[in-house]
Parts: sequence; structure tokens; C-alpha cells
Amino acid sequence: MSLSAILDPLNDPADAMPRQQQLYRRLKEAMLDGRLGPGARLPASRLLAADYGIARNTVLYAYQQLQAEGFLLADRRGTRVADLPVLHGLGVARPVASHAPAELSRRAAGLALRQHEPLLPFAPGVADLNAFPWAAWARQLQKAWGEVSARQLAYAAPAGEPRLRQALADDLRARRGVLCSPEQIFVVAGAQIALDACARLLADEGDTVWLENPCYPAARSVMQTAGLRAVHVPVDAAGMAPEPSLWESQPPRLVYLTPSHQYPLGAVLSLERRLEFLRRIVAANGWIIEDDYDSEFNHARPGYSPLPALQGLHADAPVVYVGTFSKLLYPGLRVAYMVVPRWAAREFGERIASLYRSGQAVEQRALAGFIESGALTRHLRKMAPIYRARQAVLRRELTAAFGDDVEILGGDAGLHLTLGLPAGEPDQAVIAKAMALGVTARPLSEYCAAEVPGASRNGLVLGYGMAEEKRIPELVARLARAVAADA
Amino acid sequence: MSLSAILDPLNDPADAMPRQQQLYRRLKEAMLDGRLGPGARLPASRLLAADYGIARNTVLYAYQQLQAEGFLLADRRGTRVADLPVLHGLGVARPVASHAPAELSRRAAGLALRQHEPLLPFAPGVADLNAFPWAAWARQLQKAWGEVSARQLAYAAPAGEPRLRQALADDLRARRGVLCSPEQIFVVAGAQIALDACARLLADEGDTVWLENPCYPAARSVMQTAGLRAVHVPVDAAGMAPEPSLWESQPPRLVYLTPSHQYPLGAVLSLERRLEFLRRIVAANGWIIEDDYDSEFNHARPGYSPLPALQGLHADAPVVYVGTFSKLLYPGLRVAYMVVPRWAAREFGERIASLYRSGQAVEQRALAGFIESGALTRHLRKMAPIYRARQAVLRRELTAAFGDDVEILGGDAGLHLTLGLPAGEPDQAVIAKAMALGVTARPLSEYCAAEVPGASRNGLVLGYGMAEEKRIPELVARLARAVAADA
Repeated sequence: MSLSAILDPLNDPADAMPRQQQLYRRLKEAMLDGRLGPGARLPASRLLAADYGIARNTVLYAYQQLQAEGFLLADRRGTRVADLPVLHGLGVARPVASHAPAELSRRAAGLALRQHEPLLPFAPGVADLNAFPWAAWARQLQKAWGEVSARQLAYAAPAGEPRLRQALADDLRARRGVLCSPEQIFVVAGAQIALDACARLLADEGDTVWLENPCYPAARSVMQTAGLRAVHVPVDAAGMAPEPSLWESQPPRLVYLTPSHQYPLGAVLSLERRLEFLRRIVAANGWIIEDDYDSEFNHARPGYSPLPALQGLHADAPVVYVGTFSKLLYPGLRVAYMVVPRWAAREFGERIASLYRSGQAVEQRALAGFIESGALTRHLRKMAPIYRARQAVLRRELTAAFGDDVEILGGDAGLHLTLGLPAGEPDQAVIAKAMALGVTARPLSEYCAAEVPGASRNGLVLGYGMAEEKRIPELVARLARAVAADA
Repeated sequence: MSLSAILDPLNDPADAMPRQQQLYRRLKEAMLDGRLGPGARLPASRLLAADYGIARNTVLYAYQQLQAEGFLLADRRGTRVADLPVLHGLGVARPVASHAPAELSRRAAGLALRQHEPLLPFAPGVADLNAFPWAAWARQLQKAWGEVSARQLAYAAPAGEPRLRQALADDLRARRGVLCSPEQIFVVAGAQIALDACARLLADEGDTVWLENPCYPAARSVMQTAGLRAVHVPVDAAGMAPEPSLWESQPPRLVYLTPSHQYPLGAVLSLERRLEFLRRIVAANGWIIEDDYDSEFNHARPGYSPLPALQGLHADAPVVYVGTFSKLLYPGLRVAYMVVPRWAAREFGERIASLYRSGQAVEQRALAGFIESGALTRHLRKMAPIYRARQAVLRRELTAAFGDDVEILGGDAGLHLTLGLPAGEPDQAVIAKAMALGVTARPLSEYCAAEVPGASRNGLVLGYGMAEEKRIPELVARLARAVAADA
């Protein structure tokens, strides 16, 4: 192929690239697709420059860059194309517009798809971001950036900033009855990372994990991609309810629990079961992962503390307590933490550091300051009656709109209620319609293990964290329209 | 056991806790360890208050909290301990001070231990944090916080903020020759997360991954915990060098490459091999992971662009390009990105969202502003001659101090040199001594796969990112002392 077919027109005014870039790129593309084959000679830079009316340096720069990259060889006789494997035809076997995930792994294909959703009313798992105490938070951030050192910009201590670990130990002891010292605390970039660390550091491929059914879908994904074998255990009004024989027939290496407020049905794990789980897990040589994701606020008994963490029942039990600031402050902060027993802390810490690199020491220090200053406690105290009132209005409006057809589950703690729907109206379809009306929910069916026949449930998981009281009647009316449209 | 043995003295002035907390905690502990057994009766609140000279409300609060938690039952005859499993003796089987990782998983036990290291001169992988353009960065952060909305505080778009994806697409095209549009870019919280996503979304347990030997240890850990089977492929002066027969005998699902500047030996993968890898990986139905971690700066040919990314050789090849801002800005920022082929972007994106939740939209927007404003380009342009000068001085001083006994590897790009040591002086011991003298390095032996007999290499991986020119002679003298002390 002649060079002019490759290079003309080099002065195309439509091409915004500088000419040396144009020359470089066109020559390179021609060599990659075989139009300029191995051994082909290029004209001397002087001649090429004259042919195209460009500066010789322009040609020299392109030639030299291509020589440095290994495309061109220069010898006494001039410049020629190197002897390289040709990529011609590469990739045509791959369907560019394919919708089949054939090229991903089988375990990827098994993952739940997750599309990013707009932040609509009733999206669960979101605190009232408009009520967040910006001024106090901005002060702490500014202070932390003001004190910043090179050390804090490098990789952070893998376990988290010492000051944050100390603040967390004090806070968790007081707020959640967690028995721990700072050395037992590990800060990571989100609860999902914490669950992943537990799955991989505490269990091996093929090990059994007990999951609540229904269960937080992200926890299920994490356990699955860690190669664990899931046993789906039903949930009743007192939380996860395994048949006693299950401890013998399918002994767990991990039990994943949400004791404070089961996600999504809202049950509080009874004390009797908490103690039973502790007793049995020791015998099974396993671990409990206590996901305390939504334990704030004791709506059931205002003025009293929420039920303390399961972890606090025994200082040395094989429990990893997992918490997050997503619901207390804002999800985008991406700070979660694990509390591991003191007898495992050293081993755990040395190994987690080879799984994840830590950072954001500045943000962690700001957060420590926020906790130490009492701003976190004040914020939670302020929000408790606000959320309680929102839940009460939501409950009242749901009952008014749906009558006795439906069940309303949960609400002793946290920021969501779950509305059971009659079997005839698939929750996914209801939500698609609701979203068109500007409200949303998570489908309860998505939380249910598809592998368990007959255990699927139909319903809406409704977050009221961001739903202002005065708007709730109108928002529930829209939900009711979405359900009715489907009936 | 009598109640007084449990409660006395309740007015201990040494105990800082409020009395209702003391009462609550002592009763709870006694019930947990069996001193107050199931069915035991507690005195009426009025009597207990009188006995201890405390307010009746204090007793009532403790009783009611314990009742809410399920420890106490109240009936017509008064208050008694619920019938609960007893935890007495739980956990004594676990050695509290054990150093054996028996309680962690086998795969955890196999992970490299990683202790957090102080930020000493010659620590590799760290850019000059003192030269970081704070003022420009602070302006962008402030601006992003000034424009913050509730949406940005919630979970971020799983793929990253659209504005950052656009800025990255433009920047990577210009700076690294990466062929991509914003839809192909996925932002995650660090390169290790990116590698983990590749390992899990592109390969299944038991699949084969080719790793460079020596190799970045964190990449090895990630592949191992993802259940992949590692084949350790030797590296020569032109990068990873597999025997041609290896493609048939151990065909890879993944090939992990650091083409721009092999970590740690510093080779640049030759164009011929790049093309060969592309051709072969398509035939093998596998994927290349291109870790472009340290591609900045063309020290070999100042004034020219660094060699472009392998990804740029073919728009549709099965390559995932991985980059990070750790070396460009600061490691603690924790922003890395993947570029996946456009035919896989949709599938990949939907699935990565169920592995990790995203956040830090504010920081991502600040970063987008930093790139758009040209501050990143200006910073890199400013640092290039500074790093080049540091490398030259380091090279000169190492040669002067160690003479012809040692080999100095790498340096065409990036921020580190690797110094080979004679076999007699184990690098780990040298570094322990060096650290006592206030300098550090990474041991080359740590990068070598222990499974390959005879392939271990002895040496020091030396980062010069933070080493000021004028201090280098003195710092190298300390290194030389550490080596000599060991001879």
C-alpha cells in the first residue's frame, strides 16, 4: 500500500490533532493493521517533510517516538518497519455489542445485577442527608486538612488511624455495649469490604456460611464470590431461626447475622437465640459476623438505649462485629469498621493489610474529631425523635392506604419498614411503576434466596430516613397508585 | 449466690459509671456467667433502692433495660431471671494470647504478613508528597464541598462520578494513549480493589493466572485469595518472558502484566511481546490485566512521552487497563480506575456494583476539577526533571558505594530503582539494619515466588520519589553501612 493512501490528507483542517500526532498515529495504525508490513521502508524524514510541506522536526519527532516504541528500526540505509506480529483481524471474533456475559467469569454471571438508582423517596439505607450537621463536619475536615502531614497522605495504617480507633472504641462501648480496646478495631472503606475480609480471612472455599433468608443481597454476593457455600436459614419474629438439627447436619463456619434489626424483615434477634448462637458457634469452631448496620434509635422504647450488640455478651466469643458510618453520617464517606476478638486481632490485622491498602487518614482524623467533640452523639440524639415521627406517619399512612391486606414488618430500630404485598402483584413490577411516579422501594423478593423454593416473599422495603413527615401521605398515595395499577 | 456478693459495693467511688449503669452491668454479668441462675428472684425495686440508699428510679431503669433485653421477666409475683442458655465457661477453650492463626482460614494463613512501615526515605511507591500542589488541590476540594448535594453524599454511581470518568477518558487518551470512552471507565477505591474485581469478575476458582516473577506481592495476594492458580513466569530485560510452549501447557485465563515499568525489576515490555501477548490471549480466550501503576515520566528519553499503554494497541482486545492516582497525587486518596473493552463494559459495570459500593463523590468531583483545570498535567511536567535528577544522583551514589559488585535495574520510567545484592547478604536482614539507621527499602526476595526453586533474588527496591537530591549521598552511605554490617 502506498504511503500517500495512509497519510493523505495530512493537513485535514477537520482533524484537531497537531500534525506530528497525526503522522505518528496514522503510521502506527497502518503498522498495527498490516497496511505497512514488516520491513517496509519509510522515506527519509527530509523527503517526507518536503512532500507534505511540513517541518522536518515534525517528521523526526514522529519517527523517533515510533522508534522508541519499537515500531520502526533505523539503520544506515534509513528507516523501516520492524518485524512484528500483526494484529490484523484480532478481536473480530468478539461480538462488540454482545449482551451475553460469556467473557466474564461464571461467578460474575451469578452475581445479582445492580443498576445505580436515582435517590428517590423511600430508598432504604439512607439517613437524612439534608439534616447532616455540615458545619460541624466541615470544621473537622478543615482542621484535619490544616494539620495534614506527608505521613497522612501516604498509605494509612492498615488498621485505621490510631486516633479513630480510640474514638471508635470509646463510642462503641458507650453506644452499643461493644467490649473492645482500640487494638481490636479495623477500619475499612465500607461494610462490604468488611464482610469480604471476614469471608476470606475466616473461611475457606467450600466452607459453609449461614445466611438469613431473606438476607441483605450484598452480603450474599460477597459470600458467594468468596467461594462459600450458602445455607439459607429462615427468619421469624425473633430473628434467624435454625432448626436445632442444622447445627449437626450443616455446621457453619460463618453465621451472618443482623441481630439489631434484621435486614429486611426488621426482627430483633432474641436474647435466648443470641446466647444459643454464641454457645453453638464455639462448639462448631465457627465465627459469627454481627452486622450492626442499622442499630440506631430505639423506636420501640423511646428514651431507652437500643439493645446492645450481641458482641457485648462475651468479650472473647468468636464474633466479628461490623459497623458503618453510612447510616449515621453519609454513605459516600465510605468508613466502616470491624471489631475482632482480642485473641485474633494481631493475626487478623497482619493479614488484612495484605488484602487492602488503607488511605484517607485525613478523613479518618476528621471523623475522630467529630466523635470526640460529641457532635456524633448530639446528631443522633437530635435525629431520634425525627425518625420516630417519620416512621409513625409512614405506618399510619400505609395502614390507611392498604388496610388489612398487608403486613407491616420491622421498625423497632433503624430506618426502614417492610410492607408485605399480596402474592399477585410482583414487587419488581410495582417498583417500576412507583419509580415512574417518583417514589421507590427495594423489592423484598430480591432479598430472598432463589434457591429455596417457596420461600420467596413479595413486598416493599421502604426507607424513611429522607422522607419528610409532611410529604409522607402524598408519597404513600403514589405507592398505593403503583400497587393498584398492577392489581 | 447472694445478691449482695454481686452488688457490693454499689457506691464504690472508684467506679466512674453512673449507679444505674453499675447496677445494670453487674446484674447482667451475673446472669451471663450463671451466678444469677434462671428463675432467680430479684428484690422489688423499692426494697433494693432502700437497701443501697439509691433512688427507686435508678433501680427501675436498670430492671426495665434488662427486661427489654430479655434477661429479666416481670410477672405478678415480681421480677425474675429468664430461662436462658448459660455462657459460663464459653471461650476458655480459645487461647487468648495465641500466636497461631489456627482460627483464621487456611487462605488467610497463606497470605503474606504485612506490617505497617514508617515512611522512611527510599520506601518505594510514594511520590513526593511534599511537592504536592496543595493550594490547587485544596481549591478543588473546597469548590466540590461548596457545590455538594444530597445525591453526592449518598452512594456514588458504582462506576464513578460521570464527570471524573469523562476527565479520565480525556486524560488517559492524551497521557497514556488509552483508547476509551467514559462508559468504559470504572473508578474504585484503590488499585488492589481493581485487581480484585478483575480476578473475580474475569476468572473462576481454579483458573490459571500468569504472574511475573518477581511480581508485585499485593497482586499475588489478590489472585491467591480469589482462588486462582498462579503460574510464575520469569521476567527478562524485555519484560515477562514465557516459553512459547507455556501457552499450550498452561493456557492462562488471566495474564497480569506491568508493561510500562516492570515491578520490581523495571523492564519495559517490548513491543514485539506486547503484540504477541495480544495475539495469544485472544486465542486462549483469556484476559490481560495491564497494571500501569508506575508509567509516568520517560526518564530514558526526556522530552518524549512515556511509552503508551499496551491497551492502546487495539481498541477491542481483551485487556483491562488499571491505573491509580497513588503515585500521581497521594496514596491516601484511594482512587484507582479500570478501563474495560467497550463490548464488556455494560456487563462488567452491572456486576462490579454488586461487589463494592461506591462513595466519595465529592472527592471524585474535586479530582475531576483538578484534571480539567490542567493542574495534574502541570504537576507532572514540574516533577519530571526533579525525579530524573533524583534518579541520576541515586544511580551515581549507588555505583560509587557498591562498585561493580551490584547490578542496578530499572529506571526507564517511574519512581524506583532496584539494586541487586550478592547472594551472601539476605535483603531482609540488610533492611532491618537499614531501618535502624533511618532508611528503608523493600526486599527483592519478597517479590519472588517462593514456589519456584532457584528463582529467588536478593536485592533492594529503592523508591526515590521522596528522596531530595542533596540528601541522597548521605542516605546511600547509610544503606552501604547496613550492607557492610551484614557482610
